[in-house]
Amino acid sequence: MTVLILTCQEDVTADLVVAELRERNVPLLRFDPADLPGQAGISTEFERGDFTGYLSTDGRLVSVNSLRSVWVRRPGQPAAHAPEPSEWLTAECGQALYGMLYSTEARWMNHPGAALLARSKPWQLRTAHRSGFAVPPTLITTYPRAAKEFAGQFKDIVVKTVSGPPPVNPPIALPTTRIDPETDFSGVAAGATLLQRYIPKTADIRLTCVGGRLFAARKTAASGQVDGRYGFYGHLWDAVDVPHRIDQAVREYMTLGGLAYGAFDFAEDEDGTWWFLECNQGGQFGFIELETGQPIAAAIATWLAAPRTA
Amino acid sequence: MTVLILTCQEDVTADLVVAELRERNVPLLRFDPADLPGQAGISTEFERGDFTGYLSTDGRLVSVNSLRSVWVRRPGQPAAHAPEPSEWLTAECGQALYGMLYSTEARWMNHPGAALLARSKPWQLRTAHRSGFAVPPTLITTYPRAAKEFAGQFKDIVVKTVSGPPPVNPPIALPTTRIDPETDFSGVAAGATLLQRYIPKTADIRLTCVGGRLFAARKTAASGQVDGRYGFYGHLWDAVDVPHRIDQAVREYMTLGGLAYGAFDFAEDEDGTWWFLECNQGGQFGFIELETGQPIAAAIATWLAAPRTA
Repeated sequence: MTVLILTCQEDVTADLVVAELRERNVPLLRFDPADLPGQAGISTEFERGDFTGYLSTDGRLVSVNSLRSVWVRRPGQPAAHAPEPSEWLTAECGQALYGMLYSTEARWMNHPGAALLARSKPWQLRTAHRSGFAVPPTLITTYPRAAKEFAGQFKDIVVKTVSGPPPVNPPIALPTTRIDPETDFSGVAAGATLLQRYIPKTADIRLTCVGGRLFAARKTAASGQVDGRYGFYGHLWDAVDVPHRIDQAVREYMTLGGLAYGAFDFAEDEDGTWWFLECNQGGQFGFIELETGQPIAAAIATWLAAPRTA
Repeated sequence: MTVLILTCQEDVTADLVVAELRERNVPLLRFDPADLPGQAGISTEFERGDFTGYLSTDGRLVSVNSLRSVWVRRPGQPAAHAPEPSEWLTAECGQALYGMLYSTEARWMNHPGAALLARSKPWQLRTAHRSGFAVPPTLITTYPRAAKEFAGQFKDIVVKTVSGPPPVNPPIALPTTRIDPETDFSGVAAGATLLQRYIPKTADIRLTCVGGRLFAARKTAASGQVDGRYGFYGHLWDAVDVPHRIDQAVREYMTLGGLAYGAFDFAEDEDGTWWFLECNQGGQFGFIELETGQPIAAAIATWLAAPRTA
């Protein structure tokens, strides 16, 4: 039984998990959809009751019926490396590949259908509240007047992106930013804008959930610091215990979303409350593992290597 | 309680359903994501336990908490009509809009998460077989050798697209085409290719499933005709009864896929067997209703107008 890892070639985070799986002698195939067709190939056959499928890359051939799990890490766009890439070729190859994988009994981390919902901020905030997290008041709007009213009500607010930074190369950072409530909000009409009440924080918390295992890390915040993801403020990540209520809420969130993996960001306030900021269903964990020594890659390998439940 | 119809401006199929809903005095909002931001706007607020959301377009404002259902017909790409459209603006507005809608209790026809799987041919073929349909032997491959072997085994075969015709403007037709088994298949290496055993057919069958209601129509095939969707062969669509076994299989398929709407295409052979060709989760129905008089638009309106379950 093989573990399938869908990711691009340069992915040091995937390398950590690959090393763990190799150490356990778990067969794996690392496959980049961008290499399809060309360096990689697929074939699926339906004949009466039989369904067979194969993936091959780097001269290795794996049957999809032997897949125990699929890890969707950082897959390239199907057919991106083709000599004549096109939107249509991407659709043809993407549906052929993912449709074949949807037809297997493999376990997913995470299933693209679940990821579709889990990526969206409004779904995250709604689900976080339903799961029992404290969630800062948030507005997502295209109405300048709504933005102005929200700013007037909460005074101390931040603005952040809805979907993440623009997909440009080289990547740019777009940190969460505190803004004056008297700001001119007329630009809000040009695109959906996310405003949130600022949480004065004593620390950033990153909680990584892998199947049923939770790894929380805490980084003390500098005074008035807003977005701890960028820049160095004199503090490192340390492992920290997960409060019981948070543990319950994380499990509820993962169940509601049908997720096997999630990277939760919280702001800890001076009362010790962990405020839910977001859950990235495909979030990084390498930097946390490096500083805390928490065995996250090993936990992912364990989850991927487990037998299919069926 | 309002029905939300996500579609572009020119959609005569949606017009049929809109007319049915208006006749019943069911409140509805027709909304094109392409108009966001600009002619259309959205606003979502999360504050403690409260979640409120609004959509507005053409001067009308609707609360998402009052949505009873969402019909995903032919929505434009979010922000496509913006003065400066970009991939990022589409992502920002799309996640804001759909994430807000994912957070409601509205019923979906069809939910985008379900549609994601249901669009892919391999998932369709696999699910059709599991549901009890007869499915012609099919190969989807990037390997010329696999294509050659399949052709040699089944002799009389057709080729069709995996994902549908290329997304070009004006649209082009890419009909299913019978091919010589001695064809040079080397081009298969350039893109995933779908080959299928040809079913010598006496008729095309289109079965439209709306919630629990099934509407089947039959069009006699001309001798040797392959793809009845294009061209006129001297026959029209007539309503036809649904065989019990097909009825059961359709219901099973819809349940496995979590679908509320599906347009099934079958080839009827001389033994009367209906061979599953595909199920388009967003397929047209206007042309069937026009020729058979089957009240499909009314059935969709009834489904959309029903109260929320949950």
